[in-house]
Amino acid sequence: MNNDIFVSRRKKLAEYMHKNEISLVIVEDFEGRRNSNLRYLCGHPTDAILGIFNDGTSVLVPWDEILAKKMAFSETVVPLNKFGRQSHRAISEIVSMGNFPKKAVIDLPPTTTVPAFEKLKNFLGDYTLQCKEDSSEKYVHGLRHIKSDEELSVMRKAAAITDEIVSSLEKKLTARELSTESDVALFIEKECRKLGCDGTSFDTLVAGPERSFAIHAFPGYTNGAFGSPGLSILDFGVNYGGYASDVTVTVARDLNFQQESRLNLVLQAYDLALAQYLPGQPAKNAASVVDELFAKHNLTMPHGLGHSIGLDVHDGLRVTPTSEVIFEKGMVFSLEPGLYDEKIGGCRYENDVLITEDGNEVLTKTRVVRL
Amino acid sequence: MNNDIFVSRRKKLAEYMHKNEISLVIVEDFEGRRNSNLRYLCGHPTDAILGIFNDGTSVLVPWDEILAKKMAFSETVVPLNKFGRQSHRAISEIVSMGNFPKKAVIDLPPTTTVPAFEKLKNFLGDYTLQCKEDSSEKYVHGLRHIKSDEELSVMRKAAAITDEIVSSLEKKLTARELSTESDVALFIEKECRKLGCDGTSFDTLVAGPERSFAIHAFPGYTNGAFGSPGLSILDFGVNYGGYASDVTVTVARDLNFQQESRLNLVLQAYDLALAQYLPGQPAKNAASVVDELFAKHNLTMPHGLGHSIGLDVHDGLRVTPTSEVIFEKGMVFSLEPGLYDEKIGGCRYENDVLITEDGNEVLTKTRVVRL
Repeated sequence: MNNDIFVSRRKKLAEYMHKNEISLVIVEDFEGRRNSNLRYLCGHPTDAILGIFNDGTSVLVPWDEILAKKMAFSETVVPLNKFGRQSHRAISEIVSMGNFPKKAVIDLPPTTTVPAFEKLKNFLGDYTLQCKEDSSEKYVHGLRHIKSDEELSVMRKAAAITDEIVSSLEKKLTARELSTESDVALFIEKECRKLGCDGTSFDTLVAGPERSFAIHAFPGYTNGAFGSPGLSILDFGVNYGGYASDVTVTVARDLNFQQESRLNLVLQAYDLALAQYLPGQPAKNAASVVDELFAKHNLTMPHGLGHSIGLDVHDGLRVTPTSEVIFEKGMVFSLEPGLYDEKIGGCRYENDVLITEDGNEVLTKTRVVRL
Repeated sequence: MNNDIFVSRRKKLAEYMHKNEISLVIVEDFEGRRNSNLRYLCGHPTDAILGIFNDGTSVLVPWDEILAKKMAFSETVVPLNKFGRQSHRAISEIVSMGNFPKKAVIDLPPTTTVPAFEKLKNFLGDYTLQCKEDSSEKYVHGLRHIKSDEELSVMRKAAAITDEIVSSLEKKLTARELSTESDVALFIEKECRKLGCDGTSFDTLVAGPERSFAIHAFPGYTNGAFGSPGLSILDFGVNYGGYASDVTVTVARDLNFQQESRLNLVLQAYDLALAQYLPGQPAKNAASVVDELFAKHNLTMPHGLGHSIGLDVHDGLRVTPTSEVIFEKGMVFSLEPGLYDEKIGGCRYENDVLITEDGNEVLTKTRVVRL
């Protein structure tokens, strides 16, 4: 991403700030409070505070100054060390750089905790501190939900790498060259870095038939056998150029009638839902057709049908029966129906779907691997 | 861990609650807000809400009910799905199970965000909602800082596995069988699971001489060469039975004079600091001797000297020049001096140190691997 992109994104935010009479927006990303708006607005990937003034200029306070030099674009950079690595001191300094009038509105991240907010109030009592869900953070998230062509070309590349890994995996699994959950997970880690990714986009889940009944098996993978008779789950994604992919490959071997029926039901649910991933359609419709199908068989799905994908693998929006999201052109969502049973095992089938002008485009190519 | 441990921990918390007139404590662990107090108090590893009443009994609201059956001990278990996966509805239900009088004090996690707190106030206006840093969460963290013999035996096992991996790594590196950062990282992932771990305790950092100048190279490892001439950093830990280890192995090859001096200075800092890891000693003393040594050479360390280790790899306490921690018997801290320079490269040396009755015991055995 070149610097113009960050300038243009911050300009949009500045317009929002003017409209809402906000003088300063604070973005924070630290362990336990990750926030990809940081990367979206200045390119810095992790561990920093970013202050954005209402002319679109910014101050970046990174933990790692050298990393900032390499990856970030901000008019001003001050290392966090200067403030004894204390957020409230760094934020106070950013505020003082702005020379704001009394009562100026400072919009803090909605992830600010109650104790942190109280502490900031002590330091910044002259200003109007704002911390709410409907804020600039949500506005920036809204920008992130609609992917630009440049972002989509990165996401298509992430999807293509994912597909390439799935193809290699299918070959290796068929040739019995990967025999444990751990083999499969580490093969993915290695391949994705070889193909230019920063890593996987979340902890890879590889669960053989013994453990596939869990939505997210704990731990993510073990040294146990994979590809044995029954239903297996392999859920992974890559992080390429900051953007995530997310697929679940269903691995099936010597299925009994019940297992085969479950798998077919999940595939049927996928097809029904995909036909609802259309611009202008409420996301809840897709979730409802799946729930209704499963309900006919007295089954329920213990998780959502999908989530938006972008800089984060869970990028903010959800596809559930109560979702208020309306699908729009440029949005990317996972579509991942699944069924789980302690005796039968679990199966899930998942692709990443781009909403287009007149329908959708399935970016990834997951599959049922039959061994 | 058997169930008695969870009962006894919750009893201790109940005593604290009585003393502080708290009727209910809420613990939450979700994506973006991880909290190992959940596992400490009931065994459930992830994604759940736990309510503890002032008689020590509890209600667990897990995302994955099957996982709860296998790993958790709580008098009552209600799946989160029952509440549409909405925290505030689950918490309201737990409150209503308590039949508390009006104004009863409900202690919420200090990680509760301002918007979440406001939402809860709407539902639970009759009660006194409390959200502060000095709370039951901090009290439980305090319990966690002093490890019991049972916990130490798990941590010793985690350390032994870590050492075993370091030994294997040294052999493989010396034999030139691992040639990229990715090779090293994936070898660790594979070995730790083979040796019975749930995984690594944090994202493994493997940075060859080209990237070792960064405190935490981004991304954690690439397909680039490892073990080439210069200073390399290899920082990893394992998660065994829920408990973390954390070591940094210094890898050195064909060092020039400047690089050799830096490494020696770091090792000297390590020895000086270790002599300060003693019961009754303020943690800041250890940090100060290191800072003073480096200052004599006009150098500064851009990160803390150490952190407590337990269920989390960063378990809450820090060893810095401004730390107020006093070392106590049963505490475990990392000791990890490091120096970083864009031209010279970076090096860090790190072990996990248990504070004992009359000194300390170094649990892990990191080393300088010379290639």
